[in-house]
Amino acid sequence: MAEVELTTFEVSLKNLMIALEASNLDEAKAQIKELHPGEISRLLEALQPKDRSILWPSIGSSIQGEVLKEVSEDVQSQLISEMSVDTLVKATEKLDTDDLADIVPNLPESAVHSLLLTLDFKHREHLDKILSYPENSAGGLMNTDFITVRPDVTIRAVTRYLRLLKEMPVDTDQVFVVDRNYNYLGSLLITTILTEEPEQTILSLINSDHSKPISAETDESEVALLFEERNLISAPVIDENNQLVGRITIDDVVDVIRDQAEHSVMSMVGLDEDEDVFAPIFLSSRRRSIWLGVNLVTAFIAVYFIGLFEATLQQKIALAILMPVVASMGGIAGTQTLIIVTRGIATGRVSAANIRVLINKEVAVSVLNGIIWSIVIALITYYWFSDLLLSFIIAVAIIVNLVVAAFSGAFLPLLLTRLKIDPALAGGVILTTITDVIGFVAFLGLAALFI
Amino acid sequence: MAEVELTTFEVSLKNLMIALEASNLDEAKAQIKELHPGEISRLLEALQPKDRSILWPSIGSSIQGEVLKEVSEDVQSQLISEMSVDTLVKATEKLDTDDLADIVPNLPESAVHSLLLTLDFKHREHLDKILSYPENSAGGLMNTDFITVRPDVTIRAVTRYLRLLKEMPVDTDQVFVVDRNYNYLGSLLITTILTEEPEQTILSLINSDHSKPISAETDESEVALLFEERNLISAPVIDENNQLVGRITIDDVVDVIRDQAEHSVMSMVGLDEDEDVFAPIFLSSRRRSIWLGVNLVTAFIAVYFIGLFEATLQQKIALAILMPVVASMGGIAGTQTLIIVTRGIATGRVSAANIRVLINKEVAVSVLNGIIWSIVIALITYYWFSDLLLSFIIAVAIIVNLVVAAFSGAFLPLLLTRLKIDPALAGGVILTTITDVIGFVAFLGLAALFI
Repeated sequence: MAEVELTTFEVSLKNLMIALEASNLDEAKAQIKELHPGEISRLLEALQPKDRSILWPSIGSSIQGEVLKEVSEDVQSQLISEMSVDTLVKATEKLDTDDLADIVPNLPESAVHSLLLTLDFKHREHLDKILSYPENSAGGLMNTDFITVRPDVTIRAVTRYLRLLKEMPVDTDQVFVVDRNYNYLGSLLITTILTEEPEQTILSLINSDHSKPISAETDESEVALLFEERNLISAPVIDENNQLVGRITIDDVVDVIRDQAEHSVMSMVGLDEDEDVFAPIFLSSRRRSIWLGVNLVTAFIAVYFIGLFEATLQQKIALAILMPVVASMGGIAGTQTLIIVTRGIATGRVSAANIRVLINKEVAVSVLNGIIWSIVIALITYYWFSDLLLSFIIAVAIIVNLVVAAFSGAFLPLLLTRLKIDPALAGGVILTTITDVIGFVAFLGLAALFI
Repeated sequence: MAEVELTTFEVSLKNLMIALEASNLDEAKAQIKELHPGEISRLLEALQPKDRSILWPSIGSSIQGEVLKEVSEDVQSQLISEMSVDTLVKATEKLDTDDLADIVPNLPESAVHSLLLTLDFKHREHLDKILSYPENSAGGLMNTDFITVRPDVTIRAVTRYLRLLKEMPVDTDQVFVVDRNYNYLGSLLITTILTEEPEQTILSLINSDHSKPISAETDESEVALLFEERNLISAPVIDENNQLVGRITIDDVVDVIRDQAEHSVMSMVGLDEDEDVFAPIFLSSRRRSIWLGVNLVTAFIAVYFIGLFEATLQQKIALAILMPVVASMGGIAGTQTLIIVTRGIATGRVSAANIRVLINKEVAVSVLNGIIWSIVIALITYYWFSDLLLSFIIAVAIIVNLVVAAFSGAFLPLLLTRLKIDPALAGGVILTTITDVIGFVAFLGLAALFI
């Protein structure tokens, strides 16, 4: 293979790997010294577990905390398992409450206990609040660092107040307006604070576009759609009594979007989006094995149906040669529909309201493609085996399988969603079982009837 | 199916569809009147093309522009094709330069001409600048609305200046510090402007964490990784002379992340991420047909190899029944590896630097799983056909196919990336061709030798 230019990241990784290979820890430490925690996370993810173990203790505890919140869950577990309770507490105590809430479930009991002792009452209360909501809800996603102001004060007063604060929480693009009882009233962009006249009162400036609060129970995928639709940087979260309880920031929403995206790809082959690429062999093997087992069951379901036509196959061996073509065309066409519908549901374009229209369309597309490709396949078959009846049978089987595939591909994701089964995980395997069985039965069944 | 509760969006969609079905345009208009352009985009995406055509002209031109920039490319093309040059110009003239730059390539020549006439010299120059960079580079992604300050002024002076501006560009979380020649020096968070003492000079406050500029040639996927790693809201873009030319904001980066995610799923079955779910039947049919054609070629490559063993199949029909199991297990195991490596490359965890380690690991996992599942399959085969030799042959074929699958799955994505072929698009189809052929040849070949 020709040499290609490496990116800055690849060069860092390569140098780091060489230093670790040579057990030159000082050199390795020097390599990562100037890097951002996000970059260190990416490097750690790209190393083997044993190299991570060597490097990890030499990273400062304040950086360790930032790295822990960035790495994927598998790698996080590995790193946590190699830290003492003391270093764990030191690494995590300075984290934002929402990042802490993500890590706490993976910490050993003793570390959680020690950690809680280091937090003051207010922070502990905030942590409890976040942990009381499901991890994949707005409440689980929110942090509790935000600035509130009263509606009756002026811009001048707010400016003075902010200067006294000395520092604002990261990603603060707006402050929230609440009344005496912490009821949410609206928000004020900080760009507005900077550009408006000092004498204006807050009430007159409340931002209506950004002010729609998110209920803490909202599912994280709804939150992500909302942020995308409205191009938000932060959003207020309220509880069932309209009281302001937290703030969601775009960095955490980006993680949700990335995770969902990884999930939809990885789960197609039964993998988890948190899977560590360099996981130990036995762990990887066990996880993948389950999916191979599921596939084995479906494969034997399909070949069971082939077995029913043993006599027919014996009579005409060309059937055995050609049958994978019928199954495979159905599988591809069905998976196309399945993926379009599954992604449509995930991005909110497809729902119960318009599925009927979509099913009609998908079946029509499949009939059209079925006709076109069955003619091509019939011609190839005739050219190969000079058997008109066989050509006719394979053509009909292709059309039947493509239509069933389109219908199943469009119908399955919505059915699975309703049954609370993840369509990205189960859709593909169920669909291909259907198209395999229908493909084999249609082709061999027609042959049994006519040959 | 049991009735399920519809989300707010599904209710809006349903009501809108009912109103359009009944040709009640006033009702339909009322339904979308209060909605955010982002929500209107989502509704339009969920409608059939003919319903979009009915609704579109009744949407105000200022909203139309905002909607156009949000919808996917296919839907955008449809909507644009139904607008006159006048309405197009009216809808797009108020858009940010970067959004305009995204739409311009899809506009008819005459509209671009009229549109350019409405822009003042400065805006036209900005548009030209953005269009001079590739669409998927930092330069193509940036906008030209940002605020610059000089390093030698005080916070007080900046505050006064901002108040004079009256309004700041959306998503302004920082202002950029430049010298007299527009050389980029650093940035200043606007939260810092609010919290620091008025007498401080800008130079002393330059933010080092956020200040690293992005070169305009950087690929958009690198930009996305950078935003994720550093949790950025905006970032400065510089040209090759270190001059500040633009600013990338998180909302556009979120679109990149979402598009790349959709691409990695959709391209697995040869679909485009811009595909309109409700595209006309002939258009959909043509696009999908190409992929079915590719699959047909690979399917016939695989069955050609089956054909070579016609005599062996004739001798033992059990081979024909069982051969899909061998092919399918290889396909699944290989696709697992392929997806892990492809996603690893996309998220920067896997590269030339560490691929060797990964190939070793993947092959080891496959040997382990091969041994486990070949025993299971051998037992089932023996139970079904009471044929010890057949059981032995299928077990060996499974192990061979799984090992080849792991090697191909790990090696292919990097090879394709180097050849500048999209591994998400071509990887799966090449891999399953390999596993089909190896599966059939190993199984039937061994049978030909020993039976």
